Amino acid sequence: MRYNPANPDWINRDRFVLSAGHACLLQYIMLHLSGYSSWTLDQIKKYHAPTMDGIAAGHPEIEFPGVELTTGLLGQGIANAVGLAVANKNMAATYNKDGFPIIQNKVWCFTGDGCLQEGVGQEALSMAGHWGLDNMILVYDNNSVTVDGNIDICFTDDTSAKLKSLGWHVLEVEDGSNDLAAIVDAFEQAQKLTGKPVFINIKTIIGIGSINQNSGKVHGAALGEDDVARVKTALGFDPKDKFIVPDAVYDYFKETKIKGAQYEQEWNDLFKRYKESFPSEAAEFQRRLDGKLEEAWENKFPSKDALPKDPKATRQSSGIALRSVIPEDKSFLVGSADLCESTFVNWDGMVEFQNPKSGYGDYSGRQIRYGIREHAMVAAANGLAAWHKGAIVPIMSSYFIFWLYAAPSLRMAALMKLRFIAIATHDSIGVGEDGPTHQPIAFPLFLRALPNFNYIRPADAEEVIGAWILGLRDADHPSLLSLTRQPVPLLSGTDRNKVQYGGYVVYGDENSIPDITLVATGSEVARAVDTAELLKDKYSVRVVSMPHTGRFDAQPLEYRRSVIPSTKSLVVSIEPYASFGWAKYAHAGAHMTGFGHSAPYSVLFEHFGFGPKTLAEKIRAWAEPKRNGDGWDIPGVGEFEELLVNSGNGH
Amino acid sequence: MRYNPANPDWINRDRFVLSAGHACLLQYIMLHLSGYSSWTLDQIKKYHAPTMDGIAAGHPEIEFPGVELTTGLLGQGIANAVGLAVANKNMAATYNKDGFPIIQNKVWCFTGDGCLQEGVGQEALSMAGHWGLDNMILVYDNNSVTVDGNIDICFTDDTSAKLKSLGWHVLEVEDGSNDLAAIVDAFEQAQKLTGKPVFINIKTIIGIGSINQNSGKVHGAALGEDDVARVKTALGFDPKDKFIVPDAVYDYFKETKIKGAQYEQEWNDLFKRYKESFPSEAAEFQRRLDGKLEEAWENKFPSKDALPKDPKATRQSSGIALRSVIPEDKSFLVGSADLCESTFVNWDGMVEFQNPKSGYGDYSGRQIRYGIREHAMVAAANGLAAWHKGAIVPIMSSYFIFWLYAAPSLRMAALMKLRFIAIATHDSIGVGEDGPTHQPIAFPLFLRALPNFNYIRPADAEEVIGAWILGLRDADHPSLLSLTRQPVPLLSGTDRNKVQYGGYVVYGDENSIPDITLVATGSEVARAVDTAELLKDKYSVRVVSMPHTGRFDAQPLEYRRSVIPSTKSLVVSIEPYASFGWAKYAHAGAHMTGFGHSAPYSVLFEHFGFGPKTLAEKIRAWAEPKRNGDGWDIPGVGEFEELLVNSGNGH
Repeated sequence: MRYNPANPDWINRDRFVLSAGHACLLQYIMLHLSGYSSWTLDQIKKYHAPTMDGIAAGHPEIEFPGVELTTGLLGQGIANAVGLAVANKNMAATYNKDGFPIIQNKVWCFTGDGCLQEGVGQEALSMAGHWGLDNMILVYDNNSVTVDGNIDICFTDDTSAKLKSLGWHVLEVEDGSNDLAAIVDAFEQAQKLTGKPVFINIKTIIGIGSINQNSGKVHGAALGEDDVARVKTALGFDPKDKFIVPDAVYDYFKETKIKGAQYEQEWNDLFKRYKESFPSEAAEFQRRLDGKLEEAWENKFPSKDALPKDPKATRQSSGIALRSVIPEDKSFLVGSADLCESTFVNWDGMVEFQNPKSGYGDYSGRQIRYGIREHAMVAAANGLAAWHKGAIVPIMSSYFIFWLYAAPSLRMAALMKLRFIAIATHDSIGVGEDGPTHQPIAFPLFLRALPNFNYIRPADAEEVIGAWILGLRDADHPSLLSLTRQPVPLLSGTDRNKVQYGGYVVYGDENSIPDITLVATGSEVARAVDTAELLKDKYSVRVVSMPHTGRFDAQPLEYRRSVIPSTKSLVVSIEPYASFGWAKYAHAGAHMTGFGHSAPYSVLFEHFGFGPKTLAEKIRAWAEPKRNGDGWDIPGVGEFEELLVNSGNGH
Repeated sequence: MRYNPANPDWINRDRFVLSAGHACLLQYIMLHLSGYSSWTLDQIKKYHAPTMDGIAAGHPEIEFPGVELTTGLLGQGIANAVGLAVANKNMAATYNKDGFPIIQNKVWCFTGDGCLQEGVGQEALSMAGHWGLDNMILVYDNNSVTVDGNIDICFTDDTSAKLKSLGWHVLEVEDGSNDLAAIVDAFEQAQKLTGKPVFINIKTIIGIGSINQNSGKVHGAALGEDDVARVKTALGFDPKDKFIVPDAVYDYFKETKIKGAQYEQEWNDLFKRYKESFPSEAAEFQRRLDGKLEEAWENKFPSKDALPKDPKATRQSSGIALRSVIPEDKSFLVGSADLCESTFVNWDGMVEFQNPKSGYGDYSGRQIRYGIREHAMVAAANGLAAWHKGAIVPIMSSYFIFWLYAAPSLRMAALMKLRFIAIATHDSIGVGEDGPTHQPIAFPLFLRALPNFNYIRPADAEEVIGAWILGLRDADHPSLLSLTRQPVPLLSGTDRNKVQYGGYVVYGDENSIPDITLVATGSEVARAVDTAELLKDKYSVRVVSMPHTGRFDAQPLEYRRSVIPSTKSLVVSIEPYASFGWAKYAHAGAHMTGFGHSAPYSVLFEHFGFGPKTLAEKIRAWAEPKRNGDGWDIPGVGEFEELLVNSGNGH
């Protein structure tokens, strides 16, 4: 592999992803041996030790030098590696010039059987084969043993045949525990093969030398002192020695450091000449390495005045936002799980990211056809975002409910602090005819609860632009935009600049305490305004749009109180999801208490009680008994009331 | 297919699952033609109509006759069908006798390319091949077109070769749009093949006869009047006719009804003779069809006095519960995603569900090796549970975080109102060394928010038994038990019978309002009790265990107030998940504000602030300023405070 231990971030390095993250000690030891200075023997000793300051975590973590992405949730790493390989292909196709291969490297990924069984891994394998990613090499430690025993108790795929059927080169090593020459041969051959990604299937013996070798007993449990001694003896070590690396080994690896420095120096020279010959490409490349988008990108969005006046689905408004910034800035790699037109992530003149042989596009393309593989889409996008933080901004899209398929990878993006924008159209019961299977009721609440994650449900086109700005500015967090299938009006009170506060007043007097405060999100903000209009004969009413609860929570109490004066005003939340979480802000709420139903959206909103007339009646009936002189008996914590009982799917 | 339109629930019917659920009109029309009386032409006209009372939903729904499971989330249906096939194999191996094939039928499943691309579908294909489920036939409508265009823009697997590598028989039909004889031949051949499941790859032309045939334009959008007229004309109909079924067609299908009644009559005769020859087997079979577990199963669990006195991980206690009821009652099909011993779902004398040829077990086995395929595990279990509601209770197990991989299928179980028990061990930061990748922080909150779902986090062995009882009694909902890796003490205040109320007092005087009420779940209940002991010098303290927030919410306000007197007592929630949702009950909370970390669990709990001393200090510091004479200034809605700011993974 080509890398420089002295600079783990050298841009043209070969990359390594340990998809079988539980085998991380192997990676840590290799990082130590090959000269990554952070990876001291003392650090390696902290593996599983009672300390908070180690870097030898139980699974590899992206924060630490030489680790490309946090892995260990099985299957994720293969898809991450596919993302890295796509990034390399795209950067190479975009910036390389004749005689100037500034991006030319391989992505090595290491897998056990678990990652090959997981759906996300399988989706990724199919994607890599489809794209002909010949810069990716997947090494399979085929030890035929899993936690519960022999692998053939649960997994009897002919894996090599399967990989061939998915468009991979397949190399096989029969005796990976003894025939090292065969492994080296396979690795060398793998680097020369072209046109397809390469799968190297290496038969090995797990726990070789242990009394329990070749069985599930050596998979996760410690061997115990006697057995460790046996293994050490078998390998020619003195069992008494611990954490001993013979000098000969360090000597051998010295070359790695020297070669690594050379590789980078050669690249620096190459890039210097590249800059002279291709100054504008070099400047753009450098801007991206610096983690910057094109200058003044925020100004490219249409002003509120210039937005369409007629009601538009927020998915369409998102298309307007996307087309304002995406086409010119190569930082954006856009894609869809087979719903490109429905999620409005396409644009005039776009080129598809495709194997040039396909006839559909080439590797410089920035419209990625992920296929109906949402989970691997997001895991691969994590690879794109992690390729060099800030250089690539993945934009992905699908219907909202299908993001649930990708939930583990959304979570991993949050854990790794990677930026992307997820376009999740067809939110809430507004999906309509597709019915309850396609109508998210609880999933959005997971995204609200997830640390480091921006779940944003904009009310109209203006807030959609605010959501895009929030997501793109936040270089350390992923964002998901929750968008409607159905049209919503452009509201006079919305303000893109206030989306960053999470919640703000869109209707009513900001300077006096209202009798009733309605807090709503997304398409329901307009419903809340209509409801307020029906209530205003008898009550002073305020409407708060709350596109991002997390951002609202992060504001000072004073601001929060000024927006939602819940100690003096009766507060009602309105959102066609489960009420879970809303008692933090509201005394009562209009929410879904069951699943949805298959019918046109306008029928559903009325049926489930979200028609403004119904809402106004329910709120009136709930509020009236609380009158107390000029003020109100304000309910306390523990008294949250569901204003609607609308169990869907209650056939 | 063998089925009886007059009795869609006839137990020995062939079953049909439309995995490509968006093609449901095809299924509805076939149900109409073949004589299911609910499926009138008027009902079919209600597809996408503005009404709430139709049964022709946008995707097939389990509530309606002739629909085995709700499908349409892509890939789920294939795995559901695998579950049905497993159920048939298991029931046949358990109850069939020489000359008495009381269970002998096929499961037909219909798929498009989407289900074959999705990870869950791929996991299921591998499982079916591994088990050699020759009672399953998967028909692939290979029309080479997807929403966004030709399928080869994103999907170029050699699908037939792939299915062979997974252990399937593969049949191919070259011209499925015209060569009906070839289809019939393939269907007949498929029913005769043995030893492996059968995949029938049928090349078809999508939207045949339309001006846009063979393109993405006919995938989701309506054809329009002119084009519909063209198609009708091409097929020999008068374009003016709508919803016309020629009498010849009805005549043809009359036979289906007659044959169906015959099939069932023959089966009834067979079962009558079976009852005479094998009365005890027949009684057990009948009990299961009646949806009953073995009599007095609740009494089989050890009493609290008989539970181990030393601290035990709740995953171990769950093993005690499981071994009390599982071994004798064949209703239970137990399984694991390769973590059988770690999740304590094994038992002495268990037989594995395996292809008899494997040498590992046979089809009568009730320990299912699902492999590292959590998503298909749950989707298949939905098939088991739906085979005949109540006859099979699937028990599944994995580490908690991996259930996130199965989130779409957990949600589908809730939507379909299917009973299973999911054993989710290694919850919270108690996972320890495996680190933040494996420590759920937000996912449990999704399960709390999900309608129809029992998320139960028991405090100790006694509550674990309560959780098992709750889950098994609730025939209409799935349950997930959130269990610890680490030991927890048996608490004197816990009570299995009170778990059903969701929350109850486990420590402190129940008859007076305490200064401070601590509400905790799972392993943190013991921490809360220890914290109460530290606080009791200055405060009267109550501890509430809240294993199931949904059940607590369902209690009358009077009960809820009696347990958590939040208008008079200061209430603090303690749970090492995000605080999301707790403001409904508490004025402040000790929770995780970020992700976890890799270190031993005891180090983590201290570091993140969950040590009783830290908790007591934080609570004191928060409570003291709220003293007001003899009472307290009770915070209102909107004033929830995070007592810990413990952003994990903040390297």
